[in-house]
Amino acid sequence: MDMQVSERISSVSESPIRKLSPLANAAKARGIHVYHLNIGQPDIETPAGVIDAVKNIDMKVLAYGPSEGLPEYRTALPGYYRKFGLDLDPEDILVTTAGSEAIFFTFLSLCDHGDEIIIPEPYYTNFGTMAKIAGITVVPVTTRLEDGFLLPDPSEFEKKITSRTKAILFNSPSNPTGTVYSREMVEALVDIAVRRNLFLISDEVYREFIYDGGEYCSILQYPEIADRAVVVDSISKRYSMCGARVGAIICRNRDITHQILKLAQARLCPPTIEQIAAKAALETPDSYNAEVLQEYRERRDILVEALQDIPGVSCSRPGGAFYLIARLPVEDAEDFACFLLNDFSLDGATVMVAPAAGFYITEGLGKDEVRIAYVLKREDLLQAAAVIRAGLKAYQAR
Amino acid sequence: MDMQVSERISSVSESPIRKLSPLANAAKARGIHVYHLNIGQPDIETPAGVIDAVKNIDMKVLAYGPSEGLPEYRTALPGYYRKFGLDLDPEDILVTTAGSEAIFFTFLSLCDHGDEIIIPEPYYTNFGTMAKIAGITVVPVTTRLEDGFLLPDPSEFEKKITSRTKAILFNSPSNPTGTVYSREMVEALVDIAVRRNLFLISDEVYREFIYDGGEYCSILQYPEIADRAVVVDSISKRYSMCGARVGAIICRNRDITHQILKLAQARLCPPTIEQIAAKAALETPDSYNAEVLQEYRERRDILVEALQDIPGVSCSRPGGAFYLIARLPVEDAEDFACFLLNDFSLDGATVMVAPAAGFYITEGLGKDEVRIAYVLKREDLLQAAAVIRAGLKAYQAR
Repeated sequence: MDMQVSERISSVSESPIRKLSPLANAAKARGIHVYHLNIGQPDIETPAGVIDAVKNIDMKVLAYGPSEGLPEYRTALPGYYRKFGLDLDPEDILVTTAGSEAIFFTFLSLCDHGDEIIIPEPYYTNFGTMAKIAGITVVPVTTRLEDGFLLPDPSEFEKKITSRTKAILFNSPSNPTGTVYSREMVEALVDIAVRRNLFLISDEVYREFIYDGGEYCSILQYPEIADRAVVVDSISKRYSMCGARVGAIICRNRDITHQILKLAQARLCPPTIEQIAAKAALETPDSYNAEVLQEYRERRDILVEALQDIPGVSCSRPGGAFYLIARLPVEDAEDFACFLLNDFSLDGATVMVAPAAGFYITEGLGKDEVRIAYVLKREDLLQAAAVIRAGLKAYQAR
Repeated sequence: MDMQVSERISSVSESPIRKLSPLANAAKARGIHVYHLNIGQPDIETPAGVIDAVKNIDMKVLAYGPSEGLPEYRTALPGYYRKFGLDLDPEDILVTTAGSEAIFFTFLSLCDHGDEIIIPEPYYTNFGTMAKIAGITVVPVTTRLEDGFLLPDPSEFEKKITSRTKAILFNSPSNPTGTVYSREMVEALVDIAVRRNLFLISDEVYREFIYDGGEYCSILQYPEIADRAVVVDSISKRYSMCGARVGAIICRNRDITHQILKLAQARLCPPTIEQIAAKAALETPDSYNAEVLQEYRERRDILVEALQDIPGVSCSRPGGAFYLIARLPVEDAEDFACFLLNDFSLDGATVMVAPAAGFYITEGLGKDEVRIAYVLKREDLLQAAAVIRAGLKAYQAR
């Protein structure tokens, strides 16, 4: 008899990006350069102080740290958040093994099997995988390219609330849309969380990536939800330290952090060396983030302009993060993405994009959209846009 | 209204060790030295080559690695397992963020909410926390101090199988008992797994810690269960790298590793720097492990002798790992552990032990037992045993 895995894991869909990876590898094997616009791995250098901290490590025994995080890192974190006007105590912060674990632990600790979380879509797909594994239903509130993926009227959230709803989760600046929600929108969600007795979970890992003087608005700024506001955070993008796997859960309700800590204790501790590196990252001069922000803003402007110039392509100019969603003049963006990798190249190069359907919870949405991460340097982005333009022409002419 | 966390997290019990930690801290604040026999954090130095590999890292961007692990580490791993006579392909191995994640991912991928896993008790408590969080029931097969915590007749396992049983899980050498199961016992479980169509999960993180010429027996040695044998592994104890958080899931059934990989992809990747360190650890000369083994064997002998010499104390001489369970002449070992920390010291020192009741699934078992980790140097172990001897006398005289 064949051994059967769990239904929860077999019901998780294959990542659309991962499905395309073998095609990208095959293209490379044919000698074609692939511009990877499909993943959020920045090409930005990690701050030198971080690498130096690793090189200067001084220990005889690479020992377990505390489950809640290394004290020297945890006590330094409030200084970082203070720069954003947030007054936190180290006790409000649980260090996690990246934002991924922060999300998973938050889901498992706040929601039981069968509970629901309301999330604007398109959304960060891994929220969906973790929810599914945890037996939680994600309930979408749809946002649209035509509206710059801004949140709809708050009543759209209220309509989705049932007796099983435990939380509203949002991510601003957003992966995959790049949209930054206004203070007014965030306050509408705060208001719903209070009135309807829901947790409000906010993924703020792109806090540093807000362009054009846009405002950073955190749910931690609202004392009226101190008992129900949970922020998931990560240093991955902030310091180009995706491989470090250091994140955090922030919540001022000590009953909740105490409960989550039980789960943290079961996994013993986050990685020790990389927490030392993370502490060093806190010393990064502000000029680093300012330069990175400037670089991404210029990339965004170049890419948006180049995309909007392609006949039939529409995309908005996102206010944050380093992603955007573009609508293409095709019926099936996944098929087009495969075409680019399998059957097309321009001057020896092609492009890998992420079909956007996988970022929607509602079946059938996003079929003609792709998510693009502008994590390459400007001249590469221009080349990539040229590939998309020529690729669309060739695709339509087949 | 008070915000309620999930039932799954609120039903997780506080770790008995963690409950005692504030008492240990208070004792230290009173100037008393505390011998920590309560945790499995070895005092053994990490191999110098590991620390050097960290110091010599050369990277500009601390980037995401692949979800299945860094290729250079993953492809080097079969060489390690070959030393134990195991023939593995890199594709059989998923690198995880420590053994903890290996266990959790295995549980979530093999079992649905409401499924059951049969586990010999006393057991590694974190199995229980992860099972509870995953909605899985752990079903105990009790082993006893009088029998050296060896497995009972295989029929005791068969009796516990229901329509919801998905797997049998065991850990040899065992934390918390130090027991090494014989080949005959392992083969009995292999046989049950085949006949009753169950997964067999084996936690082999103490593979290197087998004394007195005892035999290492892995479920990976049985081709008849290649479709259902899942090994969880970790480098934490092997190279005294507990803080590195690098482990693995090993399974030759590609359908299963493919399914588990979907979960691994949702958390993106294990820590990058510490995988580089883990790869360097594979170069550790065999003499390192031989010396460590010799050191632990001597510690075990000294401690067992000292404990058996205390009136009313009984413990077996475990064949592996660096734990043992001792029965004390007290009714409530937790109360005695508190007494040692709160009310007793000998020559300015006291001892922290882990009450063993928390390592049993069956309510009421292990109340007069403690788990002791012999992770301190020999003279400290002798001092600690003297504290326990004098402490018992004082406790009984109260």
